[in-house]
Amino acid sequence: MTSYKFSKKMAELKPSAIREIFKSLGQPGSIAFSAGNPAPESFPVEFINRAAADILSNSSTLALQYSITEGYTPLREAVEARLRDKFSTGKDSDTVLVVSGGQQGIELTAKVMCDEGDTVIAEEPSFIGALNAFRSLGLNLTGVPMEGDGMNVEALEEALKSNPRAKIIYTIPTFHNPCGITTSLEKRRRIYELAREYGAIIIEDNPYGELRFSGSDVPTIKSMDTDGIVVYCGTFSKILSPGMRVGFVCAPETIAQKIVVAKQVEDVHTNIFFQLIAHRFMTEFDMDGHIESIRKLYKHKCKLMLDTLAEELPDDIVWTKPKGGLFVWCTLPERLPVDKFVRDAAAEKVFVVPGSAFQCDLSKPINAIRLNYSTPSDEDIVKGIKILGQIARN
Amino acid sequence: MTSYKFSKKMAELKPSAIREIFKSLGQPGSIAFSAGNPAPESFPVEFINRAAADILSNSSTLALQYSITEGYTPLREAVEARLRDKFSTGKDSDTVLVVSGGQQGIELTAKVMCDEGDTVIAEEPSFIGALNAFRSLGLNLTGVPMEGDGMNVEALEEALKSNPRAKIIYTIPTFHNPCGITTSLEKRRRIYELAREYGAIIIEDNPYGELRFSGSDVPTIKSMDTDGIVVYCGTFSKILSPGMRVGFVCAPETIAQKIVVAKQVEDVHTNIFFQLIAHRFMTEFDMDGHIESIRKLYKHKCKLMLDTLAEELPDDIVWTKPKGGLFVWCTLPERLPVDKFVRDAAAEKVFVVPGSAFQCDLSKPINAIRLNYSTPSDEDIVKGIKILGQIARN
Repeated sequence: MTSYKFSKKMAELKPSAIREIFKSLGQPGSIAFSAGNPAPESFPVEFINRAAADILSNSSTLALQYSITEGYTPLREAVEARLRDKFSTGKDSDTVLVVSGGQQGIELTAKVMCDEGDTVIAEEPSFIGALNAFRSLGLNLTGVPMEGDGMNVEALEEALKSNPRAKIIYTIPTFHNPCGITTSLEKRRRIYELAREYGAIIIEDNPYGELRFSGSDVPTIKSMDTDGIVVYCGTFSKILSPGMRVGFVCAPETIAQKIVVAKQVEDVHTNIFFQLIAHRFMTEFDMDGHIESIRKLYKHKCKLMLDTLAEELPDDIVWTKPKGGLFVWCTLPERLPVDKFVRDAAAEKVFVVPGSAFQCDLSKPINAIRLNYSTPSDEDIVKGIKILGQIARN
Repeated sequence: MTSYKFSKKMAELKPSAIREIFKSLGQPGSIAFSAGNPAPESFPVEFINRAAADILSNSSTLALQYSITEGYTPLREAVEARLRDKFSTGKDSDTVLVVSGGQQGIELTAKVMCDEGDTVIAEEPSFIGALNAFRSLGLNLTGVPMEGDGMNVEALEEALKSNPRAKIIYTIPTFHNPCGITTSLEKRRRIYELAREYGAIIIEDNPYGELRFSGSDVPTIKSMDTDGIVVYCGTFSKILSPGMRVGFVCAPETIAQKIVVAKQVEDVHTNIFFQLIAHRFMTEFDMDGHIESIRKLYKHKCKLMLDTLAEELPDDIVWTKPKGGLFVWCTLPERLPVDKFVRDAAAEKVFVVPGSAFQCDLSKPINAIRLNYSTPSDEDIVKGIKILGQIARN
């Protein structure tokens, strides 16, 4: 039997430990608050079916042949126009590229900007996919505690000061994963200023930005980017389909050129057929009406979850009240250690993700869980939260 | 204006210099021998159209929702069965994974096996996409000269001996890109033995293995893999569609597990809709009949190109006679420096790729060009080769 010597950075990166707990997920009767999936009823299946048939009948070579790494030009232009109109994002010196999901945009940006041993500063907790991408590149992570209006900016400054190799600030300012929190305008401005002051690049990850169901939009950090230091990552995963793996980045042109080179050696280009679908979704379909219907659906599901939490959970558990996105974050009291809580819930076939899955610093467990409301049915939301309430009161 | 500090490994990786020469490619009247594209008439458009409609009507959630990183299980099983039946590839200790094109399989394997500063040994010349993937990971390249029956195995042993950090031997033994050469069985055995002896992993890249149009199949190196040291990379790009970006790896399970972790942080999973299409292509369509028709098409186009080369080119140019795949490799005499030849051809709107595009060692220019016969029409093959002949005789 051959024993393998893996690269140092990959040797340390393990598949998620929570997989074990989730083995029975998907069995009949299980209730999954653990996913990050959009509601399947939100997929515009009929539109995709019609568009697919038309593309294959009239543009089959374009849709099936090799394509260019930068992405399908009309899609890039449509995304650029929407980013400008809706998010004031993208200057003349910026370039929009198509990538294979938001995940790839994050990973490629870190790859082109950072050497092994450099530091990424992120919200603590943060999106596991991004944290593991940084780890896979041999980067160090420094977490900045999350507050109700975004990361603690004093702690951010401290982290920048004490990490001369801090190259990137990674943030999800809108409907944060896992916290559901939106960073205030004031803090966004401060994060931008600090990045500029300390010579860091910001990755603004905004997969949920289209999914606001109450309150008003807060300007993106990218909209403040007069210095060319923000790489904005977006995706069609939450408004069209995640299985198609089509996302985009809006980046200063010089950075975008490097991202193209890095993307070329990873997957040559993103599936071109679904780039054509995404383009038609933006230009031939009532995209805004479709997004509005998703917002309504999630507003309803989120309210149902928040109302049931208020009815069923004991007073010593606190949770966030998101105005968009997919997640509620529940902080547990000391008397309820999260690992036992998650196992007990799984034994009752209710699946939630423990805080430890989202940590930069794995040595300081966060006693909290993430709940997703977009995937489960209304009935399961009520039933599942009742079960969590019973476990919490025991 | 912000000046950026990119990662060392990416700072050195430049987009291909031949892009400049190819600016007028695609203009009316241009003849492209430069592509690596399959013939668009080989795409089974009607089948894909029918399968797409059925999938979107009956399995839309499966096709559009998030999926697992390893790939769609029935597709993995179908690929595994075909590899065993047709290529004697894949032991019980091997795992098949779906990746986003053969390119991703190569890049991920190198990522999990190699630290920065490790060495990859490859045929000289070799596939630019793989070489740049290795470079993007901060790896050193050592080229082993290509001969008519595969790489020089004495030089391979020398390279392994003198590079204690040689972790990977990268080879395209069947219908090599760019040379069109097939490595003999004897040399395949020797390459395998040497890898075992010196503790290296072999990446066997086999994108063209299904495209043999004369002679008999030579066993894959993976078929000899009793030690679990070969990662086999395949793809649907040349038999179904390259634009869909669906490939696969067959790897020892321990390596495959690491590849899954590395893939998850790059793109989460491969476009699931086209994994379903690929699965139906393998199980519900006359895949073998379809591949046979592609072989016939390429046999015809290759013969036409070889015959025209024999008629039109002066005696001091020599070229390979492929028995499959997509490429002919022409070695030019000293009197015809390749850079000038490529520029002169481009001025006549005939596009060929210079040897320098495929080199491990960029300091020793190879005076040769790669010609592709799968993309151009019959008429353009004859017309284009005649123009090359005129340039060569001037």
